Amino acid sequence: MNQGLSRRGFLHMVGAFGGTAAVYQAALGMGLMPAVTHAARPDIAPLTGKRRKKVVILGAGIAGLTAAYELRNKGYDVQVIEASHRAGGRNLTLRGGDLVDECGYPQTCNFDRDPDLYFNAGPARIPGHHSALLGYCKELGVALAPFVNDNRSALVQDDAMFGGRPIRNREYITDTRGFIAELLAKSLQPEQLSAPFTGADYKQLLEYVRQFGELDGRFTYTGSGRAGFARHDYTGPERLKQPLPISELMRSRFMYVMSFGESDDQSAMMMEPVGGMDRVVAGFMAKVGDCVRTHSQVETVRLTGAGVDIVFRHKGQRTLLQADYCLNSIPMQLLAGIDHNFPPEYADGFTAVQRGKLFKIGLQMKERFWERDGIYGGISWTMQDIAQLWYPAHGIHRQKGVMLGAYTFDDETGEKFARLTPAQRIERAIQQGEKLHPGYRTYVESGVSIPWHRMNHMLGCSARWDESVREQWFKRLQAPLGAHYLIGDQLSYHSGWQEGAIHSAFHAIADIDRRVREQATQVVAA
Amino acid sequence: MNQGLSRRGFLHMVGAFGGTAAVYQAALGMGLMPAVTHAARPDIAPLTGKRRKKVVILGAGIAGLTAAYELRNKGYDVQVIEASHRAGGRNLTLRGGDLVDECGYPQTCNFDRDPDLYFNAGPARIPGHHSALLGYCKELGVALAPFVNDNRSALVQDDAMFGGRPIRNREYITDTRGFIAELLAKSLQPEQLSAPFTGADYKQLLEYVRQFGELDGRFTYTGSGRAGFARHDYTGPERLKQPLPISELMRSRFMYVMSFGESDDQSAMMMEPVGGMDRVVAGFMAKVGDCVRTHSQVETVRLTGAGVDIVFRHKGQRTLLQADYCLNSIPMQLLAGIDHNFPPEYADGFTAVQRGKLFKIGLQMKERFWERDGIYGGISWTMQDIAQLWYPAHGIHRQKGVMLGAYTFDDETGEKFARLTPAQRIERAIQQGEKLHPGYRTYVESGVSIPWHRMNHMLGCSARWDESVREQWFKRLQAPLGAHYLIGDQLSYHSGWQEGAIHSAFHAIADIDRRVREQATQVVAA
Repeated sequence: MNQGLSRRGFLHMVGAFGGTAAVYQAALGMGLMPAVTHAARPDIAPLTGKRRKKVVILGAGIAGLTAAYELRNKGYDVQVIEASHRAGGRNLTLRGGDLVDECGYPQTCNFDRDPDLYFNAGPARIPGHHSALLGYCKELGVALAPFVNDNRSALVQDDAMFGGRPIRNREYITDTRGFIAELLAKSLQPEQLSAPFTGADYKQLLEYVRQFGELDGRFTYTGSGRAGFARHDYTGPERLKQPLPISELMRSRFMYVMSFGESDDQSAMMMEPVGGMDRVVAGFMAKVGDCVRTHSQVETVRLTGAGVDIVFRHKGQRTLLQADYCLNSIPMQLLAGIDHNFPPEYADGFTAVQRGKLFKIGLQMKERFWERDGIYGGISWTMQDIAQLWYPAHGIHRQKGVMLGAYTFDDETGEKFARLTPAQRIERAIQQGEKLHPGYRTYVESGVSIPWHRMNHMLGCSARWDESVREQWFKRLQAPLGAHYLIGDQLSYHSGWQEGAIHSAFHAIADIDRRVREQATQVVAA
Repeated sequence: MNQGLSRRGFLHMVGAFGGTAAVYQAALGMGLMPAVTHAARPDIAPLTGKRRKKVVILGAGIAGLTAAYELRNKGYDVQVIEASHRAGGRNLTLRGGDLVDECGYPQTCNFDRDPDLYFNAGPARIPGHHSALLGYCKELGVALAPFVNDNRSALVQDDAMFGGRPIRNREYITDTRGFIAELLAKSLQPEQLSAPFTGADYKQLLEYVRQFGELDGRFTYTGSGRAGFARHDYTGPERLKQPLPISELMRSRFMYVMSFGESDDQSAMMMEPVGGMDRVVAGFMAKVGDCVRTHSQVETVRLTGAGVDIVFRHKGQRTLLQADYCLNSIPMQLLAGIDHNFPPEYADGFTAVQRGKLFKIGLQMKERFWERDGIYGGISWTMQDIAQLWYPAHGIHRQKGVMLGAYTFDDETGEKFARLTPAQRIERAIQQGEKLHPGYRTYVESGVSIPWHRMNHMLGCSARWDESVREQWFKRLQAPLGAHYLIGDQLSYHSGWQEGAIHSAFHAIADIDRRVREQATQVVAA
């Protein structure tokens, strides 16, 4: 498995520490570090005068609302048909009195009515590089605050280490790194290296490793304040904690988890809308709400020579809409079951893509007990099924708080929870939470559970494109079929993120704009 | 320098991967991981009936305000004498119209009058384990929000690498780690190891290293999404950026800086009061403001048989106060110059402790240009004198923002800036900021500079106790001399932090309480 390190390989890897500078400076002059490409908001040509284009949008999630907002701004005649009782799709913030529209197990959220007591059941954080979504937050007046993924004072818990006793995130990270750094420093031998890797380079490398692990003068890890101190009474000297034994730390599979907050989409600084993620939906709805029809279930989608015919049912009554274009964000696996006249080389793709079964639990706690333990915001991790606990970073020091009591990503665990009744799910989450916070149960006032693969009008989330399915279907489904465009995060390279949904809408409306412009040119030319 | 790695040393280091579990489980049962000791708020006995104790507190900084608040709550007769025009000490938030009371260079802050446009010139962040300060925030109704130190989208800039061109923090961290991890994975040879370190342990260790560096299947670092992608248009496949050459990354001394956000006091989650750090001062002042006299300069501190006599001058008029106890937070190096009757074995310590020369610049920017670059909050680093740029995490997407344009810690740089006029300092900060943000200059509307070693009534900050001075003086100065107590962060093991100031006050008032209780007992006994 390990390739070993030949001298040649090593030299190749470290490059010419002293050699390539001149070449490199020249490269810089030519723009070494390219600008990052973001999807730009399409510059749609306004429709003026008597030219109108009718666009029907299926689904009032973030993709549909984006398209409606952009097209309406340019004079398109837009209607949005939404099956659910509400706009937003998976952008769902639950508050006291809200319906959790799970098939078979409809729940009512019983949180207190209080502006700080809400639960983001779908997306809950926005990375700083999701510039399209952030642009809408700015434009629509959605106030943002920092969201904290990484809290070194939060906990990690794994039955495989320390007898299941939780430790602080900072202890896990610091002591593991200290060990790894010591190992590296002591494994590296100067005699392994030769020109152009100099002795000075070697010393610098060691110095990096020392800093990384906070090793002592002999490159030994003897503990670090980064892991927290045993004493925080500043009237006397600080006292380091004993490093946790690496033999225990290495028993845990947390090594896979601890890089979570390093990823492009999860690293600081993350943000959240003040008051709940659905402030984004409210922002869009303030602009286009008048053209959104909820409680309207699509029954038929048919391509015609002229465009697309849609039949939807609202309160038992069927309505036919005839549109020049249709933007369709209905989850593809549901679309497969609706009456349509798509050819198999298009429609067969609808069921080729698997859907995620993410599952969340939100718990109203009668006391923000975590703050007494110095945990403000962030995430605790456990190897139990609940996987994560989130502590709210808003409403600090208030009496109550809504925390996340479970967030599972893998299908098997999602199904396991979904098979339980809502009450059983909460009970399971409480039992597991007790391992991180003894007495956890006594704080729980009410809870909601959201198995996304059982939620009405969704039956899944986060389209899971594996490589072969992507190869076979993505471009075909992303391309329009006549006047019909599939949209939504499902038709993006960033499923499960609002930014993916927005980009899919950008892609479709840019294409409609192109066609409308071409038609206009043809009319003028004729 | 490097000790090399003997087989024996190695085995000792990794411990018994499989061996000590049973011992360890037993240790856990006995409470392996001890609770952290925090300074508790002293439980002061209330003074009742006609028993009154008069306490004079010198200085209305955080230490003085803490003592005043606690003692007043228990019936003590408290007066706080403050030389400056304001309470708060180094807890200083600057807004439009405020005076920057620098000796020789008084400045007026010209920021727009706007609740989001302020600058925390002193402390600016609160770690989650500073439980005493956080307790007061809770009790005094000071609203808190997350503060972000670590922003992976912020920049690092060093003339020594990439020809001075800034790169993203995430690129620096990820690519450096990738290289180090590859080096480690390829240096470690299984034949170096022997029982009880098994092949499975070895594989797990390599797996950790792979996760850490996000290495590929051959343990080679070929780039990582953690460094950011070259393409964020999710209508098509993501494209990794080329890893930055390690030969360039290693030229920088940022290895020392990059562990900044790992430390006990700087790691997530940090907090800040909503609206400025001086909301803490306002919270205290709402409770004890009526016993605080500003513009009152202490001229004499004299121990008497009965207590302490204080003479202070207010608007040219001298007043004598006679107190049972005096809590004195006057910076010791200034106290040395005041008339007193302390013996040399006490007073000689006043000048033994060096003071820091921290320096900050705040700049009002007419546009939050950093947000256009995807930088929301956090810190950019540079090896230039300004050292840091901070972007506000509050007021996101508003038009203007106040950012930190310099924050220097070392004395030499602090002095270098202080020798300039305020206008020259701003100009210097702009020139250096341009290296990180081309066009920086065009956004600057106004600025303030705060050299703490030139600030009136301060002339320094962050008492710097080296080990020998600590050994010689700390306990002597921390202990009361008769009825006189030195307080402030200067008399703590956490200089420069409000938590240290609070703990120093706790230490003194707990001792006063002890003495008062003893006197009461003696009276009863007599």
